[in-house]
Amino acid sequence: MAVTDRRKFMQSLAAGASGAAILSAAQVVADEKKPTHNDSVLAPGATVLFQGDSITDAGRSRDVAEEPNNQKALGNGYAWMAASQMLVGLPEANLQIFNRGISGHKVFQLADRWDKDCLDMKPNVLSILIGVNDIWHMLGGNYDGTVTVYENDFDALLARTKEALPQVQLVICEPFVLKCGAVDDKWFPMFDEYRAAAKRVAEKHSAIFVPFQAMFDEAVKYAPPEHWARDGVHPSPFGCQLMAHEWVKTVSHAKVS
Amino acid sequence: MAVTDRRKFMQSLAAGASGAAILSAAQVVADEKKPTHNDSVLAPGATVLFQGDSITDAGRSRDVAEEPNNQKALGNGYAWMAASQMLVGLPEANLQIFNRGISGHKVFQLADRWDKDCLDMKPNVLSILIGVNDIWHMLGGNYDGTVTVYENDFDALLARTKEALPQVQLVICEPFVLKCGAVDDKWFPMFDEYRAAAKRVAEKHSAIFVPFQAMFDEAVKYAPPEHWARDGVHPSPFGCQLMAHEWVKTVSHAKVS
Repeated sequence: MAVTDRRKFMQSLAAGASGAAILSAAQVVADEKKPTHNDSVLAPGATVLFQGDSITDAGRSRDVAEEPNNQKALGNGYAWMAASQMLVGLPEANLQIFNRGISGHKVFQLADRWDKDCLDMKPNVLSILIGVNDIWHMLGGNYDGTVTVYENDFDALLARTKEALPQVQLVICEPFVLKCGAVDDKWFPMFDEYRAAAKRVAEKHSAIFVPFQAMFDEAVKYAPPEHWARDGVHPSPFGCQLMAHEWVKTVSHAKVS
Repeated sequence: MAVTDRRKFMQSLAAGASGAAILSAAQVVADEKKPTHNDSVLAPGATVLFQGDSITDAGRSRDVAEEPNNQKALGNGYAWMAASQMLVGLPEANLQIFNRGISGHKVFQLADRWDKDCLDMKPNVLSILIGVNDIWHMLGGNYDGTVTVYENDFDALLARTKEALPQVQLVICEPFVLKCGAVDDKWFPMFDEYRAAAKRVAEKHSAIFVPFQAMFDEAVKYAPPEHWARDGVHPSPFGCQLMAHEWVKTVSHAKVS
């Protein structure tokens, strides 16, 4: 039963219904428990695109980038792990998964390559993880962008995306850091403002928001920050698997709005 | 609403109900969507024990083995990855997770240490992955057990467990191999008989069955066997994350019977 049909059915129930309809209510509950992807973001045949910086790039091969669902094209990070979880766990969804993360990139660099590396690919689901370089390169003196520039650039990128692809389901991943390695006190509280900006932009554009910082804040209760990301920025396989599980859980449980 | 309450409510609906009860049917559907662990295998405060061989052991520290939810005690394999996914994703469940896998072990070696390493620990959820050494050591001429010995030993271990811990929720993980490294044609079709035996034993004892071989058979469509387990037996971080996600998905979706 599609979401709209179910809503209509429940409305008819609430308005007063026949005995037959009452009997069917048990079936509605049973149907809710059946795995179905008809009203899922991960609809059959959906094209899923991961975009971002080095955390998304994760050593992906450019040579086979045009091939969907190819491990070398998807790299060795959370994007590939999330992809493999979806491909193996939901084979009937026939997803077409791509990665176009590029190491070192900030929001304005995504914008520079957006036609080719996003809009022309017409993704149904577009996941973006961006922001750590916007602050890191600024702290290092190699970039003059502020959190306002980050938010405005990000907002403009999503507005442009929605205009070109009105049906796209956006997934905004929260920028995160672990407090170790390259991440020292200088990052705070400014980094929290970048996270808040990402969340505001996600809400403005009705994106699914994947709360990676909250996840890692919980994770450090069980293992030290270095276990999850040695340099504080680039996740280990343990960090990547946690991200992949969180991404798949969040996105696969979300319903088409 | 607990499972039994919900069943009673749906029965009362089916038997004929008042307008107020009909209105409440919409709430029942809404309640189904809320995350709740009351009727979940992963109930609040549950003790979860991973048992098995080197795949489960995965370099765990014996020094801190008594501490639940400790990364060093849980090792670097699928058990730790599954644990971290549960601990981080379900903090309200307050799970107490342990690992007692020991490298090289076969079923009879689990039996030898079962009082101390399982029954005395009184797990609520007991996950066992065992079998690859039962065939591997036999093929290598270092063990004379057959698939019948494996099945009978496994059956007896579970009967003993259920007698001591009638309420325990068993999780039997399917033994698996990738066709590479140490795993050559000599393994087949005999290995398939070990898998079938594990499944029979799981069904006999009402265990949740985690289909790892089916999962890896799907995974090799996207990356070569060596990507998932270089020697065909011990999973890489990529293999472990897939196992962890599958384990958590299967067990967290299972309901208390």
